[in-house]
Amino acid sequence: MLGFLTDYGPHTEHVGALHAVAAAIAPSAARIDLAHDVPAGDVRWGAVLVERLVRVMPRGSVTIAVVDPGVGTARRAIALETEWGRVVVGPDNGLLGLAADRLQAVRAVEITSEDHMRRPVSATFHGRDIFAPAAAHLVSGVPLSALGPEVDLTTIERPHLPEPTTTDGQMDALVAGVDRFGNLALWATWEHLMAAGLVVGDRIWAISTALRSRGTLGRTFADVPRGGLLAYVDSHGLVSLAVNGGSAEERVQATAGEVVAIARQS
Amino acid sequence: MLGFLTDYGPHTEHVGALHAVAAAIAPSAARIDLAHDVPAGDVRWGAVLVERLVRVMPRGSVTIAVVDPGVGTARRAIALETEWGRVVVGPDNGLLGLAADRLQAVRAVEITSEDHMRRPVSATFHGRDIFAPAAAHLVSGVPLSALGPEVDLTTIERPHLPEPTTTDGQMDALVAGVDRFGNLALWATWEHLMAAGLVVGDRIWAISTALRSRGTLGRTFADVPRGGLLAYVDSHGLVSLAVNGGSAEERVQATAGEVVAIARQS
Amino acid sequence: MLGFLTDYGPHTEHVGALHAVAAAIAPSAARIDLAHDVPAGDVRWGAVLVERLVRVMPRGSVTIAVVDPGVGTARRAIALETEWGRVVVGPDNGLLGLAADRLQAVRAVEITSEDHMRRPVSATFHGRDIFAPAAAHLVSGVPLSALGPEVDLTTIERPHLPEPTTTDGQMDALVAGVDRFGNLALWATWEHLMAAGLVVGDRIWAISTALRSRGTLGRTFADVPRGGLLAYVDSHGLVSLAVNGGSAEERVQATAGEVVAIARQS
Repeated sequence: MLGFLTDYGPHTEHVGALHAVAAAIAPSAARIDLAHDVPAGDVRWGAVLVERLVRVMPRGSVTIAVVDPGVGTARRAIALETEWGRVVVGPDNGLLGLAADRLQAVRAVEITSEDHMRRPVSATFHGRDIFAPAAAHLVSGVPLSALGPEVDLTTIERPHLPEPTTTDGQMDALVAGVDRFGNLALWATWEHLMAAGLVVGDRIWAISTALRSRGTLGRTFADVPRGGLLAYVDSHGLVSLAVNGGSAEERVQATAGEVVAIARQS
Repeated sequence: MLGFLTDYGPHTEHVGALHAVAAAIAPSAARIDLAHDVPAGDVRWGAVLVERLVRVMPRGSVTIAVVDPGVGTARRAIALETEWGRVVVGPDNGLLGLAADRLQAVRAVEITSEDHMRRPVSATFHGRDIFAPAAAHLVSGVPLSALGPEVDLTTIERPHLPEPTTTDGQMDALVAGVDRFGNLALWATWEHLMAAGLVVGDRIWAISTALRSRGTLGRTFADVPRGGLLAYVDSHGLVSLAVNGGSAEERVQATAGEVVAIARQS
Repeated sequence: MLGFLTDYGPHTEHVGALHAVAAAIAPSAARIDLAHDVPAGDVRWGAVLVERLVRVMPRGSVTIAVVDPGVGTARRAIALETEWGRVVVGPDNGLLGLAADRLQAVRAVEITSEDHMRRPVSATFHGRDIFAPAAAHLVSGVPLSALGPEVDLTTIERPHLPEPTTTDGQMDALVAGVDRFGNLALWATWEHLMAAGLVVGDRIWAISTALRSRGTLGRTFADVPRGGLLAYVDSHGLVSLAVNGGSAEERVQATAGEVVAIARQS
């Protein structure tokens, strides 16, 4: 099974080209679009999604991950094998860093074998010319070692995801991503809320650089009235902000890359 | 064959997760994305699309339908069997109501079997944890009855879709949905136009709360000049408004949930 | 293998209906979404993508191409066979013209056989009722000749794509399309740059009707600093404009259908 995760945008020709190239090499592999709406060039959020979605892919699957603002520069092209024989192929720019850390990386190689590329390799579309062919060859039975020399796992780039800071009654965390409902996913977990002494049922402030908004720390959307602001732990374990029937991005006036605080109302 | 219909947005990670979870359970099932651009939380338009698209799915197919603003509340999770052995799985919030009414419902069950869920079940992502696994198990041969107890078909929620009103020369109808071309789909059919005495060739007004626009009642876009406003019966049998080469949504200044009148010019 | 290329928009119900109809006829064919974000009604850019993407589809594949603002008018429905037994099915409005010119067209037929349509044929959704069924029948083994009478290849409509003009130090070319990164694809190649005496490394102006922007003629995004404007030949051979980490569409203030000049700074 082949997974695809890019910042190419939904149903663009770039996504189509990846599929066509992969299907020509591995016609019997099932192909799954994991996400293509990663904001253009947002390696950090891409890294979160790679780790998250490879986790739900079946054993033995191969995922093509491309968020690659440095295409054509010296950054390596790598293939990373994780637990359950799952492999991820992509640029070594941080995008595969969380998967390397959290999915029990086994080994990785740098993709250098021209026999497994689409030639001539363009300067600007390595998804089509390097990553999709490599993944399709892997899923067809080509061994990882055939793609190129082994890479020291500790040298794989990690994404820039600073940890939250906590004090009594307040947690400050990075907005790692925003989904289509306007929910803000913070780079923080229950542990960080607990470290700040925040518990379900607390009345809270969500504090952006722009303003403070009243809300509740709860479990699901229905824990607040329609239009109410909710802090909760999302289905992936990240502390998130949502507005029941609305957009937390608009309410809180914060977006990806900014820091938001969740603080107990005193 | 598995169909997917959600308000998760095109090529989002949420869509990807549904596919990955379903493919892990039913690897040999073909998967079809029926629509993911339903406006967030718009159960009514979702219900129209569920009925419409399940109708073109092959016999024996299973469709996962998720427009679920009340996820995490007491609304039931159900699986509905319709004519030709087609099954639809989704929240019992109105989304499956038109399918129940119009696709010759045979029986339905409430999904309660934890053996057919992804555990632990999150509070906010039942698509991934309940609906996709249930559908994948069904398409793999698990009988409907294994998912949970039977549900009285009359208790399935229906969507709020008020009927048009007609007088001589005028029909008032709800805008049920808007497509990417800006075409407005009204919740009305030829019968309602006929009841108002409107016929192909009539010069008409389209009347929103904002303004009146001149147009023609025709059969296809070419029945009006470029830039002209057309009322017609769309390929699904709904009376619709379109602008040849433009957007009826902009021209008429009406959108989903509002009432628009089509009236003969006298 | 079945390809799909439309202006229906990402993950809309229209795309879903094509897939469902095709899958019901040809359940074992792999289906590939090549692109659905063609701007509504933009036959010219659609034609560029058809030629480009059919080129990467495997031998024996059939592609459904629908950008069809004249649906319901007298324009023909055709099926075009190109090199490697690849077939493209779509409206004869220019959309298949570049494929006919550049992919070594073998023969074409007009689709008239009602036995291979979904009936009744609607006036406004020929993708579902004519093109998807025809393609699915072809990929299932129905011969091209069964769909209808042969069409003279020279009568197939060509898209309106005027050639660039060049003088010493300047090339004027049409913006054929814009991708999701805001990159502008010009209808011009290396040959046209060479005819104007422009070479890699040149400092250039990109001149729209709105303004002149400074840039560099290079090979890849990293040839200019972050925020810099780059002219380059894209991975499909078209001269393009990009801003490293930004949008050339915004920088240059030009969009599809307009003419932009690339001129050497003197």
